[in-house]
Amino acid sequence: MAASQTGQLGNDQTAALQASILEQGHKVRELKAAKASPEEVKAQVDVLLELKKQMELLTVGAGGSASGSKKGSSGGKLVIKTPKGTRDWEPLSMALRSQIFSKITKVFETHGAVTIDTPVFELKEILTGKYGEDGGKLIYDLQDQGGELCSLRYDLTVPFARFVAMNPSDYGTIKRYHIAKVYRRDQPVMTKGRFREFYQCDIDIAGVYDPMVPDAEVLSILVEALEALEMGEFTIKINHRKILDAIFSICGVPEEKIRTISSAVDKLDKSPWSEVKREMVVDKGLDESIADHIGEYVKLKGSRDLLEKLEMDEKLSAHPLAAQGLKDMALLFNYLDIFGVTRRMSFDLSLARGLDYYTGIIYEAVTSASAPPGFTEEGAAAKPIVRSESSASSSKKSKKKPEGEDEEVDESTVGVGSIAAGGRYDNLVGMFSNSKKPDAVPCVGVSIGVERVFAIKMQQLRDAQARGEPMSVRPKKVEVFVMNMGDGLLAERMQVAKMLWDHDIKAEFLYKNKPKVQQSFAAIEKDRVPFAVMLAPEEWKAGIVRVKAQLGKGSEEGAGKGDEVKLDKLVSYLKSRIAEMTQV
Amino acid sequence: MAASQTGQLGNDQTAALQASILEQGHKVRELKAAKASPEEVKAQVDVLLELKKQMELLTVGAGGSASGSKKGSSGGKLVIKTPKGTRDWEPLSMALRSQIFSKITKVFETHGAVTIDTPVFELKEILTGKYGEDGGKLIYDLQDQGGELCSLRYDLTVPFARFVAMNPSDYGTIKRYHIAKVYRRDQPVMTKGRFREFYQCDIDIAGVYDPMVPDAEVLSILVEALEALEMGEFTIKINHRKILDAIFSICGVPEEKIRTISSAVDKLDKSPWSEVKREMVVDKGLDESIADHIGEYVKLKGSRDLLEKLEMDEKLSAHPLAAQGLKDMALLFNYLDIFGVTRRMSFDLSLARGLDYYTGIIYEAVTSASAPPGFTEEGAAAKPIVRSESSASSSKKSKKKPEGEDEEVDESTVGVGSIAAGGRYDNLVGMFSNSKKPDAVPCVGVSIGVERVFAIKMQQLRDAQARGEPMSVRPKKVEVFVMNMGDGLLAERMQVAKMLWDHDIKAEFLYKNKPKVQQSFAAIEKDRVPFAVMLAPEEWKAGIVRVKAQLGKGSEEGAGKGDEVKLDKLVSYLKSRIAEMTQV
Repeated sequence: MAASQTGQLGNDQTAALQASILEQGHKVRELKAAKASPEEVKAQVDVLLELKKQMELLTVGAGGSASGSKKGSSGGKLVIKTPKGTRDWEPLSMALRSQIFSKITKVFETHGAVTIDTPVFELKEILTGKYGEDGGKLIYDLQDQGGELCSLRYDLTVPFARFVAMNPSDYGTIKRYHIAKVYRRDQPVMTKGRFREFYQCDIDIAGVYDPMVPDAEVLSILVEALEALEMGEFTIKINHRKILDAIFSICGVPEEKIRTISSAVDKLDKSPWSEVKREMVVDKGLDESIADHIGEYVKLKGSRDLLEKLEMDEKLSAHPLAAQGLKDMALLFNYLDIFGVTRRMSFDLSLARGLDYYTGIIYEAVTSASAPPGFTEEGAAAKPIVRSESSASSSKKSKKKPEGEDEEVDESTVGVGSIAAGGRYDNLVGMFSNSKKPDAVPCVGVSIGVERVFAIKMQQLRDAQARGEPMSVRPKKVEVFVMNMGDGLLAERMQVAKMLWDHDIKAEFLYKNKPKVQQSFAAIEKDRVPFAVMLAPEEWKAGIVRVKAQLGKGSEEGAGKGDEVKLDKLVSYLKSRIAEMTQV
Repeated sequence: MAASQTGQLGNDQTAALQASILEQGHKVRELKAAKASPEEVKAQVDVLLELKKQMELLTVGAGGSASGSKKGSSGGKLVIKTPKGTRDWEPLSMALRSQIFSKITKVFETHGAVTIDTPVFELKEILTGKYGEDGGKLIYDLQDQGGELCSLRYDLTVPFARFVAMNPSDYGTIKRYHIAKVYRRDQPVMTKGRFREFYQCDIDIAGVYDPMVPDAEVLSILVEALEALEMGEFTIKINHRKILDAIFSICGVPEEKIRTISSAVDKLDKSPWSEVKREMVVDKGLDESIADHIGEYVKLKGSRDLLEKLEMDEKLSAHPLAAQGLKDMALLFNYLDIFGVTRRMSFDLSLARGLDYYTGIIYEAVTSASAPPGFTEEGAAAKPIVRSESSASSSKKSKKKPEGEDEEVDESTVGVGSIAAGGRYDNLVGMFSNSKKPDAVPCVGVSIGVERVFAIKMQQLRDAQARGEPMSVRPKKVEVFVMNMGDGLLAERMQVAKMLWDHDIKAEFLYKNKPKVQQSFAAIEKDRVPFAVMLAPEEWKAGIVRVKAQLGKGSEEGAGKGDEVKLDKLVSYLKSRIAEMTQV
């Protein structure tokens, strides 16, 4: 990708040299323009060459491959690259990205969502304390240059909650989507799709409604969006914070350890039970018997059958938190049945979700779509997901060999590709507002991480390109290429192009006085331009141009000279040809 | 504007006022719906406008300015706001913003441009030294948290040059557009459309071509884009760096003072000649006679007539730089004539453009479109423009009273609204690459600043809204509202909605078990939903629902019960009704 090529430029010394080179270059050109004597010119050219030689000496050896970790400059030379963990989006990527966003946006808008945008940075205090200990460490701060302290947004959820809290009368009930970049100063693994700047596609429903109705709609939206992306099979793991907390309580986890034990459980998708149990007992000082008791619960998976099993569990159903969670889940399954999406769900008691702010159902979508080479499931799962606790520490821990156990981490089955996650968070808006009721504006939402989707689709595109197949994504949308057949006819080509632009026909011509016919055809071929408008001197005088289809059937049949078209009929002729083409 | 939302939460006064405004707005709409007399409506509209005026007064201080300087928190309490100089985009603004971007994108794509994206921050050294002394001070740095030093992008031009320099073989010839946010730590004036986070819409053509052909196309693109935005009359001031430099040289400006004198001249759009002369003579130590000589030139304005006049100027036409500039301008006028855009141009020798990197023609578009209240021309001109030297110091200077002169700054005529700017910069890519030729990848481009466009259009929208007129921009695109007539019928409404979603029909229903009919109609009214699908218990049992148009002619005629439609025909029925509606 774009990050591969690097160049360099100097600091002060090279900058000064560069300036001298520019100035000397000017001097040489001026002398030439003024038709100075060859001797005079040569003297100045020699000075220029000497300056350039110095520059070369200065910059030698600054090729820059793995210099990303070295504060940007190595030995006084500037490495030309994007910052660590970021990348450029070149035209083909952009076309694919926009295709992916359109599909997601369409689903969101079908559900009546509106969109908002927030600044890329927030007051630091707005973000502080929202992402847990690990997440907090990954926040990018802006330098204190006087004035407010700010940080780059870490996700789109906290800014959304801040927005709602500021405008409760207008947006206390809102279904909003937001597709934007977020920032995490994590250890990037570009080949694995883990970036420091990456996109999230969020949809959230804020407002007081009857139980589980918006929750069910968010899950339906998630199913529809993943289906629209054609990523193959996927499963949405669901669980309920209240059931999980009740389980911990019933098993005897002390109140103050519930969150930390919950976050250990959350690692079960990447680590075996033995490792998670070790963390609970050794690292977090939980009684082994309590851990074993938890283990009996969190290994359970199923659908409505699991719900029925839990409802039969007398201790659980007697617990007020669990009772509420079970009631929610029963209602949710009813609604998911109506929406016809239950078959996508897996009620999974091991799903805990890292962040503290969830208060109700939680979910995570995992897909089994094949990832491109070098793009491992584990890496992919780690980053694009909003609202997941940082994987920086957890993924490190999951690499540790299980101690004193002989279970093995099976990398091919654990950590399947997480592609979206979310849940209900009823108190986050309340943290920003002065309201007496912390859950005055309850919310539920989901965030789709598209980096993984993008990486997979991009690989498919590049494979197709390598096989010489026509691209399904075309970054350049030019419809007509205006070219000359003999002579330059620049003014005439410009005139025709302008006429087409003024009628919304996408057109280009070569910026040359006398381009060769092959150059025009090369441009047409490269950008797969469907029509050529050809200008020849004699025909032009008669007010005639020729139009020739370059793609599809027209290009076969009419091979040769193309259709003669009167200049004053050209726009309507092309419009109907283009319309025909897009119908096919 | 969205700036009104930056008021702090807990500011009871603004919240109350906001509530009154909403209520009053409702009253106005109700009166209109009830066909009240014009006098009655006007009286209530007046109340509404008065409320809005009060709100404006309240929030002008509250937004960025007042609390912004207080490090975010005041007296231990967290202030919930966006950072100084930034704002949220609420759904209506987003709809308008997307409409504006679509118009600009369409023009760019009609010219065959592709789009790219770059990270929101760059290595600090990439940006260093590119924006002049004033600009450099306004760059946002990220905090040094270990690793590379980075800064937020200040414009889209330097990242573009960096991108091209990294990928010369792929993108050494490219016509690219980029619509994205840039960041300047300037003193914001939200009411004047000057933000710290704001959008730029750039298009640039990189590559070696025959002289002035891409330059002319960029100017044609600019004209087409400004026409598409329907901003009223505008003028594009054009000049040529080489002509300007030659003038300075002929007048006797010492080589080392050319850039600083050029930047003084650049202030002529905001300051009278007397002040600019004072700066040259007093601040910059130029001979008064030299300044006067410059004055004779830079007061000149015209079209091709000015070009002819300059060509007759023996000293000028003998100067090699000027000769080249004049040749360029003659060619440019030829091409602009072909494109039919010459009438928009004003050849203006006072246009200098602040940045150092321009090497050929430079231009700036100014519009006379009426700005919203509190949005002065000067403020608007200051910020949205790329590639202009920072106005932070220059606008301060322009406020100084001219010393020892009796000319007055006429604020109503100087500093008309700048809306776009650009020029040719042939050496910027070279600064990043190892190429022996600094101008190996010459570029020309323009940047359109949309904040001003947005502010004006937003004000028009809000005025229309206050008058109770239907909105030309509709943030929520819901086509169908699924409602119950008696009983709750939640499961049935969910079933119908899902059926519609699955067929790409935009639909919503109330997330309540038993919503009242009035609640549904209120939601329909608020979001101007064109169709209601009504479910009643008896009809539902017979497999029938009723569809009633809520807007347009259907809503008048079929007043009352609407059309009975069989459930299995509902999708096709609605699709044809929706298609009909969009055709009207």
